[in-house]
Amino acid sequence: MKRKIVILGSTGSVGRQTLEVIQKHPGEFEVVGLSGWENIKLLKEQIITFQPNISVVRNESLAKKLKNEINNLNKTKIYWGVEGLTRISTLEEVDIVVIAITGIASLLPTFEAIKHGKKIALASKEAIVVAGDILAREAKAQKVTILPIDSEHSAIFQCLKNEQKSGIEKIILTASGGSLYNLTDSALKSISVVDALNHPTWKMGEKVTIDSATLMNKGLEVIEARWLFDISPQKIEILIHPQSYVHSMVQFVDGTILAHLSEHDMRIPIQFALFYPDRVINNYNRLDFTKIGQLTFKRPRFNKFPCIKLAYNALEVGGTMPAVLNGANEIAVNAFLNNYINITEIPIIIENTMKNHIPKQNPSLEDIFDADYWARKTALSLCKDKA
Amino acid sequence: MKRKIVILGSTGSVGRQTLEVIQKHPGEFEVVGLSGWENIKLLKEQIITFQPNISVVRNESLAKKLKNEINNLNKTKIYWGVEGLTRISTLEEVDIVVIAITGIASLLPTFEAIKHGKKIALASKEAIVVAGDILAREAKAQKVTILPIDSEHSAIFQCLKNEQKSGIEKIILTASGGSLYNLTDSALKSISVVDALNHPTWKMGEKVTIDSATLMNKGLEVIEARWLFDISPQKIEILIHPQSYVHSMVQFVDGTILAHLSEHDMRIPIQFALFYPDRVINNYNRLDFTKIGQLTFKRPRFNKFPCIKLAYNALEVGGTMPAVLNGANEIAVNAFLNNYINITEIPIIIENTMKNHIPKQNPSLEDIFDADYWARKTALSLCKDKA
Repeated sequence: MKRKIVILGSTGSVGRQTLEVIQKHPGEFEVVGLSGWENIKLLKEQIITFQPNISVVRNESLAKKLKNEINNLNKTKIYWGVEGLTRISTLEEVDIVVIAITGIASLLPTFEAIKHGKKIALASKEAIVVAGDILAREAKAQKVTILPIDSEHSAIFQCLKNEQKSGIEKIILTASGGSLYNLTDSALKSISVVDALNHPTWKMGEKVTIDSATLMNKGLEVIEARWLFDISPQKIEILIHPQSYVHSMVQFVDGTILAHLSEHDMRIPIQFALFYPDRVINNYNRLDFTKIGQLTFKRPRFNKFPCIKLAYNALEVGGTMPAVLNGANEIAVNAFLNNYINITEIPIIIENTMKNHIPKQNPSLEDIFDADYWARKTALSLCKDKA
Repeated sequence: MKRKIVILGSTGSVGRQTLEVIQKHPGEFEVVGLSGWENIKLLKEQIITFQPNISVVRNESLAKKLKNEINNLNKTKIYWGVEGLTRISTLEEVDIVVIAITGIASLLPTFEAIKHGKKIALASKEAIVVAGDILAREAKAQKVTILPIDSEHSAIFQCLKNEQKSGIEKIILTASGGSLYNLTDSALKSISVVDALNHPTWKMGEKVTIDSATLMNKGLEVIEARWLFDISPQKIEILIHPQSYVHSMVQFVDGTILAHLSEHDMRIPIQFALFYPDRVINNYNRLDFTKIGQLTFKRPRFNKFPCIKLAYNALEVGGTMPAVLNGANEIAVNAFLNNYINITEIPIIIENTMKNHIPKQNPSLEDIFDADYWARKTALSLCKDKA
């Protein structure tokens, strides 16, 4: 039987590669739903190729426009907004929901998909970062497996596979160090947007690339790991590994370390999540150790990259604080990308936003959205003060 | 309930470390039997400490001598010879048999222990190398798990844990390269026994250290892996990794590689085997990536180290040929250690012995012993011709 699949964010990088994986395995999947938000042109092509029952875009006017363009070609229904995303994520016939949209918009559809017992393949960080506790609890209640499809958490998932939780000593999250790791403090301060966007090993979206340069990316991944693997933050360590071939590791209480390695190819963790628990053959490039020659490792420089510490702090405070960290970071990164602030001001904006927040413990989803909104408003005004 | 354990080869390096692990976990094991072959002095100490019911030595006169020495101290019975080893390995009350004796003497006790349904913790290479097919078939029939306690196969075992066999693309056996890897051809030819015994990362017995220098060690491990993991030799690759922190890896059909790393400490795989499937906490040194800094990898130089190819050949021919490889190698290594031949003549002796052998397919244990005896005799006469 074909697995019935919905992809939220099919026009983004992970979404497109998910469709590529699906095309490599004809007869295995039926694409039931695709959401493309604003990229109507690509979404139209995907609709023609994959003939989903439903597609979702950002708003009603984009929906009408897309409907007009594909009208004579097929019968795909077009929905819009977060409500549309939630609707396709909870359709009865759907088996797997791939969540690959950025921003807090992923939260409600993720929660609802879990609540409806769907298998989740999760590329979006935000939902787990801002509401990890709520999502993890719901997943446990519904016996839903959340399969991470970023390379680090997929690696940890695979190293942990079938190991007892009591056997885990620590998780070692590897980090490339991003584009700016070796700069001096003063060079870092005056780095241009173009240089910051030049990531050494991975090609990603702008927001993620800046997060990678500030190492906030790793901070968010620490929060993710905490909830995905139900592990205390003290047991999550970051290790700089510039080649990004070791995607992460798990150290066990007996001194054993299991590591996950592969080429830089997001299709590998995507395929793993889609076919889990099976491993399915592909012809993607294999890692060639004799070509690579060496793998190097360095201690992270937390002082220079304070975003990591902010993430640990947010996790320690808990409640709505991770949502505030995430919201403030989005605003600050955007301000940097638009030349309002320099890159070293990003953590300052976040820290000051967090300082002003009175966290609420055991928050509801509503509380999370409120905290997110408050954080964005607060961070925006702090950015304006700087600009 | 205490696990009842027998250790064959308790006075050797692995045996001693096994007892160390047992002492670190008081209340978990009851040492039922210990065999010490010729080292009566150490065996006596071990008997006093662990109070086994039975102990085994090489022959009757050593048995009498040991009995006299411990007579007033306890009631341990002393057996001797391979018959004695087999007897303690098959005692009804025994749960785990640790097989850590060198040479083909391990074969019968290993076979009988499997036949009697004992859990096997296997450090000895020879039994699996010479009779892998027979032992693997018997283990399958008796539903016995053979837990390897050399670092490479323990690593592979852990990377494979709970993965489907169809998912395996290849096994990557890592090799330090031994003490002579970077020598020129002429330097290799005239290497002294002392230099050859100076292994860069592991402290081991003389025979194993020379096997490591000729890379025969890896060849034997290829044969072991073939039977322990029921995998075709074409799917077993060797990779030079001088630091010996990555103990081995498994590559899966989806492009994923799982690697096993730890400090150089045999107690880690020993403990894993003794407690399997549980992971138990210890305070052995942890691998510190920021101290190590780098892991390097090189292609193996098969031309310079022909023993590897001989091992693959023996496996391909099958039947009694691996027993001939192993027997001839033991004689040749011994001849080198006694200055009869130089180190580059070891593979020549083995190759010529193999060339003279008419292999028997589907051999019985009897056939294996015959082939081993023939190989030793033949290799010895070839060594004498050289000397």
